[in-house]
Amino acid sequence: MAQSAPQEIPVLPPSNIITLLTDFGNADGYVAAMKGVILSINPAAQPVDLSHEIEAQNITAAELLWSTHFKYFPRGTVHVAIVDPGVGTARSALACAFGGHYFVAPDNGLLDFCSRGNNAAVTINRPKYWRPEVSSTFHGRDIFAPVAAHLTLGVPLSSLGDPVVLVARAPQGTCRIENDKLIGEIIHIDRFGNLISNISYEEFWKFCDRRAFRVQVAQLTFSQLLPSYGYVAAGAPVALFNSFERLEIGINQGRAAAQLNLYTGTAVIVERGDAVLHHAKSRK
Amino acid sequence: MAQSAPQEIPVLPPSNIITLLTDFGNADGYVAAMKGVILSINPAAQPVDLSHEIEAQNITAAELLWSTHFKYFPRGTVHVAIVDPGVGTARSALACAFGGHYFVAPDNGLLDFCSRGNNAAVTINRPKYWRPEVSSTFHGRDIFAPVAAHLTLGVPLSSLGDPVVLVARAPQGTCRIENDKLIGEIIHIDRFGNLISNISYEEFWKFCDRRAFRVQVAQLTFSQLLPSYGYVAAGAPVALFNSFERLEIGINQGRAAAQLNLYTGTAVIVERGDAVLHHAKSRK
Amino acid sequence: MAQSAPQEIPVLPPSNIITLLTDFGNADGYVAAMKGVILSINPAAQPVDLSHEIEAQNITAAELLWSTHFKYFPRGTVHVAIVDPGVGTARSALACAFGGHYFVAPDNGLLDFCSRGNNAAVTINRPKYWRPEVSSTFHGRDIFAPVAAHLTLGVPLSSLGDPVVLVARAPQGTCRIENDKLIGEIIHIDRFGNLISNISYEEFWKFCDRRAFRVQVAQLTFSQLLPSYGYVAAGAPVALFNSFERLEIGINQGRAAAQLNLYTGTAVIVERGDAVLHHAKSRK
Repeated sequence: MAQSAPQEIPVLPPSNIITLLTDFGNADGYVAAMKGVILSINPAAQPVDLSHEIEAQNITAAELLWSTHFKYFPRGTVHVAIVDPGVGTARSALACAFGGHYFVAPDNGLLDFCSRGNNAAVTINRPKYWRPEVSSTFHGRDIFAPVAAHLTLGVPLSSLGDPVVLVARAPQGTCRIENDKLIGEIIHIDRFGNLISNISYEEFWKFCDRRAFRVQVAQLTFSQLLPSYGYVAAGAPVALFNSFERLEIGINQGRAAAQLNLYTGTAVIVERGDAVLHHAKSRK
Repeated sequence: MAQSAPQEIPVLPPSNIITLLTDFGNADGYVAAMKGVILSINPAAQPVDLSHEIEAQNITAAELLWSTHFKYFPRGTVHVAIVDPGVGTARSALACAFGGHYFVAPDNGLLDFCSRGNNAAVTINRPKYWRPEVSSTFHGRDIFAPVAAHLTLGVPLSSLGDPVVLVARAPQGTCRIENDKLIGEIIHIDRFGNLISNISYEEFWKFCDRRAFRVQVAQLTFSQLLPSYGYVAAGAPVALFNSFERLEIGINQGRAAAQLNLYTGTAVIVERGDAVLHHAKSRK
Repeated sequence: MAQSAPQEIPVLPPSNIITLLTDFGNADGYVAAMKGVILSINPAAQPVDLSHEIEAQNITAAELLWSTHFKYFPRGTVHVAIVDPGVGTARSALACAFGGHYFVAPDNGLLDFCSRGNNAAVTINRPKYWRPEVSSTFHGRDIFAPVAAHLTLGVPLSSLGDPVVLVARAPQGTCRIENDKLIGEIIHIDRFGNLISNISYEEFWKFCDRRAFRVQVAQLTFSQLLPSYGYVAAGAPVALFNSFERLEIGINQGRAAAQLNLYTGTAVIVERGDAVLHHAKSRK
């Protein structure tokens, strides 16, 4: 959802890098068609795959990956995400500048993380920057890829369409405080079977406020977080903040999801006690 | 199959882009070895993956993807396809120019789509442009990759081997007219479970000639084509021309192949009526 | 394992190519984060995926792929392998020059093939070349990727840490002679179901010494090696040296692993007879 509004639209340092995040898989050539379109417009562009194995039409999983990974790329990078169940219908398309990067996506919640901070956004509505023929089923190739390529050529964001105010679409992807508990859930299982929650490092420590804590996930209770998997015996469960600063449950040299029989959607509940932890954040 | 003949061999605009289409998968390093060989010959080359998840030795599926995707890349791009059950036997190797692009592949039907239009082709038989040692089991790395890299360096097609006339190897991949019906089949199921047929937009409308039509696929009958999946209710089947202009059956927010229990090889039959459709092609 | 020692550390020709070999898969964005870090340090770097589908934490499989594939890349290429069950614990990190290439990896056996030849190595211990914040669970992104990027910028190996002597960690990955038999095992099954052993072309012919031989794998016996799969009837088993010079059992147009019901770990036994083969090596 997006409403029109005046905005200052920043000009970012030029970059040829375009990251691509989709639910297309790598088998059918859809991603390659986007790269071909990009290279036809800017032969110096450098497409980089973020992931194409997002579960089909899972916008929440895509937003998690997008919001945690963009920052490892150089300022000015253009990030494109296409998870687009509404392609060809009335849903609009957005481009925005946020945190020193550009983002291009359908207007379906993928850009929620940008809407929660300073950003400048436009609704993509200038066909001049699209492919001449636009299909009804593949805007990734016909609209989003060309728009991204034009951004790397220095076309300003403001030329791509009319300014809008980003408004978050979905409450998902964030945790909440209820009855003095911090309540999140498992929202992703990675290749190693690690269970990744929507509780961020920042939200966790703000809630705990240097006090002792207890993390509950199904039958498991953790009263400490460790630096890495190898800090417990092989086969034992461990809770930690992962390298993308999300609370995660793993099993050292094992596969937590399968061995604990847990799935995305499982609640993760944090309670706090009275004892003050002097070095709670010392590992950072 | 290829016969010798005199030909005009065009010189295409130089491009450093080499697309790679194989049935190698991405796990075993075979694709990486090809990229290493390419970059050793032309460090400025830009290899782009088209797909490496073609079903093992499925030449028809590879030709469909190749023939529909090459056109999104800049003119002069070199496209390499390796689906090669006959590697190390007497099958020959081909390179050709078609539609403003270069194509390099084993002589086993992959180049059929080029043989049906204006093209210039050579049989690859000049070891000067190969790796010094050629294995019996991996010509992708030892012959095709180096030949492609040399094309990006400006080596003319005519230097790679003797001219030949391309002759189509397989009748597959195309539909036919029989008893006043257009008869095709499902030849690919994509990651979303969409059923993709070998009936092209052009063949369909030429056959229907502005008249009403009926598309039959197993128990399903469609009397209209819609612009996109979201034009029917969630869970309902829809027939449409996809973004690569092939007749496709999908289910909105569902997986057609699994839910309809249909496979590649299923017949797709188009019949035409008497009524004239004034706007049959208006969506383009 | 690595001991300190004085060494001559060679300077290799500069290359922007960085190959990446991991057990991360392509779904979770871990590889993309490494590429983002690399491109933030050296925007001209060219990351190339070797494979990210190494079985989780299988160091032996990673070393096989790494040791056989690096040589197809230009001299001076930087190769990074991250299969790292000990991340965040006391295991150290290594960089070395071997065979005209650079290699960067955790100290857990991945570099064994370098330790068996002339090499120069350092233990990575200069945080100046790492990301400013180092997580406990993802050194691929925070230490190895930045170190690799700095190598492509011309930072000498000797600046990355103190010199060490590489010592092989594992006896795996190599075959042995016992009771006048050469004994190896299947260590990898590729996408085509081919069974790949740890017996190299060199070791095989050194052992056989131009004499007749017999290769035994489970119930199968081979008394000859053929140049390629197509030299036997469709469905028949064949033994050959593959394109990476490892003894391999395949089935022409079939899937050896599934059809023969064989797995990694299966013994491959070579016996030699008295007859002299005059052309045993003629196919090379």
